Amino acid sequence: MSAFSAVEVITAKRDGDALSDDAITWMLDAYMKGEVADEQMSALLMAVFFNGFEPRELLTWTDQMIASGERLDLKGLSRPSVDKHSTGGVGDKISLILAPLVASCGAAVPQLSGRGLGHTGGTLDKLESIPGWRAFLSNDEIRSQLENVGAVICAAGQGLAPVDRRLYALRDVTGTVESIPLISSSIMSKKIAEGTDALVLDVKVGRGAFIKTHDRARELAQTMVSLGTSHGVATVAQLTSMNQPLGRAVGNALEVTESVDVLQGGGPGDVRELTLGLARIMLELVGLDVDPASKLDDGSAYATYRMMIEAQGGDPDAKMVEGACKDIVLAPQEGIIQSVDALDVGIAAWRLGAGRARKEDPVSAGAGVMCLARVGEFVEAGQPLFELFADDHEHLARGRDAITRAVVLGETSAPHEPLLLERISK
Amino acid sequence: MSAFSAVEVITAKRDGDALSDDAITWMLDAYMKGEVADEQMSALLMAVFFNGFEPRELLTWTDQMIASGERLDLKGLSRPSVDKHSTGGVGDKISLILAPLVASCGAAVPQLSGRGLGHTGGTLDKLESIPGWRAFLSNDEIRSQLENVGAVICAAGQGLAPVDRRLYALRDVTGTVESIPLISSSIMSKKIAEGTDALVLDVKVGRGAFIKTHDRARELAQTMVSLGTSHGVATVAQLTSMNQPLGRAVGNALEVTESVDVLQGGGPGDVRELTLGLARIMLELVGLDVDPASKLDDGSAYATYRMMIEAQGGDPDAKMVEGACKDIVLAPQEGIIQSVDALDVGIAAWRLGAGRARKEDPVSAGAGVMCLARVGEFVEAGQPLFELFADDHEHLARGRDAITRAVVLGETSAPHEPLLLERISK
Repeated sequence: MSAFSAVEVITAKRDGDALSDDAITWMLDAYMKGEVADEQMSALLMAVFFNGFEPRELLTWTDQMIASGERLDLKGLSRPSVDKHSTGGVGDKISLILAPLVASCGAAVPQLSGRGLGHTGGTLDKLESIPGWRAFLSNDEIRSQLENVGAVICAAGQGLAPVDRRLYALRDVTGTVESIPLISSSIMSKKIAEGTDALVLDVKVGRGAFIKTHDRARELAQTMVSLGTSHGVATVAQLTSMNQPLGRAVGNALEVTESVDVLQGGGPGDVRELTLGLARIMLELVGLDVDPASKLDDGSAYATYRMMIEAQGGDPDAKMVEGACKDIVLAPQEGIIQSVDALDVGIAAWRLGAGRARKEDPVSAGAGVMCLARVGEFVEAGQPLFELFADDHEHLARGRDAITRAVVLGETSAPHEPLLLERISK
Repeated sequence: MSAFSAVEVITAKRDGDALSDDAITWMLDAYMKGEVADEQMSALLMAVFFNGFEPRELLTWTDQMIASGERLDLKGLSRPSVDKHSTGGVGDKISLILAPLVASCGAAVPQLSGRGLGHTGGTLDKLESIPGWRAFLSNDEIRSQLENVGAVICAAGQGLAPVDRRLYALRDVTGTVESIPLISSSIMSKKIAEGTDALVLDVKVGRGAFIKTHDRARELAQTMVSLGTSHGVATVAQLTSMNQPLGRAVGNALEVTESVDVLQGGGPGDVRELTLGLARIMLELVGLDVDPASKLDDGSAYATYRMMIEAQGGDPDAKMVEGACKDIVLAPQEGIIQSVDALDVGIAAWRLGAGRARKEDPVSAGAGVMCLARVGEFVEAGQPLFELFADDHEHLARGRDAITRAVVLGETSAPHEPLLLERISK
């Protein structure tokens, strides 16, 4: 007879008690062994949604997730390692620029990433629109690319935090995604297992983020920073605004093209601003006194990008695919753009084919939205607001339906909203 | 594509929204078809535990559970039908006496029952200690026995409220049993499907009941009375105290023997009092103006009991089995008994072998506890408090360990606690 029973653990959390370290360890271990069933774990996750975890419980829960799998060892590298994680936004292609940029400044960036689900895109999906590029690397390949190029963006191996893989899939179908302790432990278990020395968290807040309020974003940021610091990872969180899409491009190949523009010293101002803001924190965390803007402007970040893509089989000079069916959304009247709803644009890109509803669905490389006008700009009646791309007319029509109310026009100038909000460190 | 998704239904309830009738109907139907998984249903049940149901939601949820199966038709009987349901207590053998008693007063009592789980015994388990008695009857057998004898105690058929059968098994392993809307819909869906005209609910409150406080018992009673009334079943709830065990016998065969004593006009006063209290409400609900006490004292209730047992193959004259291993627990000092903890006694009887931990476990007919001294009585040091029965010494030792602190002795007289508490009707 076991020292614990799943029902006792569930009812304790349900009734607001803190779980003992032994109970947490037993529950996750028994779940991985199949002795605790999915329906018991989902009931516990829902109880955690309501009653939360104390810091000690969350630490143990996260430790056990890390201990369930292997850890990457980046200790032997000649460069200090630093990673970035974003909680997900619309048009968020920052990783594609940031990883080679920070590598060109002398750090190693081990960006183990996931795929997109719902209205926010995934970094791997974007890079897979580059012909030949492959997402799966062995641990030896990761280490050698970090040493030689300085930047790796690849799929997180199956061996890192395998409990998280199962819990995430379960949370996805049981309405238990939006829980701060569960989100925190999911993100941080993978990042800690990845072996990075330092970590910057881009915590998105606003219409296009899954966290809508500043207070909740701060709570999530504090929780993750605390978990990282407890595990010896120098961790800082930057809250950033996600009300309008980042940059102009939303979609896989479209975002690669825009990223290359920024890597070559051009591109939309907000993408450059956020990339540099995060790069400065990353360099500060690993003690590298380099101005990242200079590396965008002198071509070194772009050179590192090319090496990074080539090292994983991709052709950085390949022509990017574009959806065969196009449409333009026009301004119905003149006015100053008050807002461009990131959620509407994200859903439109998703329906156009750029995103997936289930993790096994394919995505279209060429589908997406180009935002042709941004908040604060004046548009004439009939001026283009969005260009839409899809692989077929059915997707095009579905995407178009989703975007019709994305832009609000007004007569007055729109208030300026800062992109970089609060910085959270321990 | 379906009009609903399980995740949307779960998150709506999680976030405190009321579910539409269509959403509830879809969810239960999809669950029975296997389109909604156990882990999704358990997450919803946990969300219901926290956020409850509005009356309209609960009504729809219960309706759908009834509609998932067949309904017994008792319309053609020459007697009015009235049933009793108890939420479960320690030593609660009332059904064994009440069904034939109320039948002997002219009503039909269709008592479709379940088995015990945990520290409270099940009516079917008790009757199965009578040699030859069988719990499974066809619907035709139930109707004919109701007409001819007036009382049936048998297993609820698989056809009644099949959703409840699956939900109950799921709740049992996912820590979602103790939810008033879920308890209410589970009990009432079966009782309404059973087709009874009237129903008395014995809602237990106290140490040995699963509801510990009067307020929560009242809330459960009101919820069930309202569900019954809405479905045309005349329903009254009686809150009753369950701090000390009912009567002296706790265990399957032991309780049958004690029930026969009460049916013959003797037995413990509290068992007789509660039986008569519930019988009076049942008779009132179906308009029968008979004094039930006279039917205990003149032998007619016992005669009906014998017919009821014989109609289901049982031998009412068979000698009842008694556990081969016995032990006596003595008072460690003299004093007045302040309390006899029903939960401790229930757990002891369970460990002695009278109860089961999983629904597929067998139970021992001869195991159990005789409570030899009751609250308010004076005992000498060394006087017997409990007699324990088990089939083997291992069970005997386990039961003995559980009962050691069940009795509290003191120097002052114990306060009298009424057995019948509040009556709840619409």
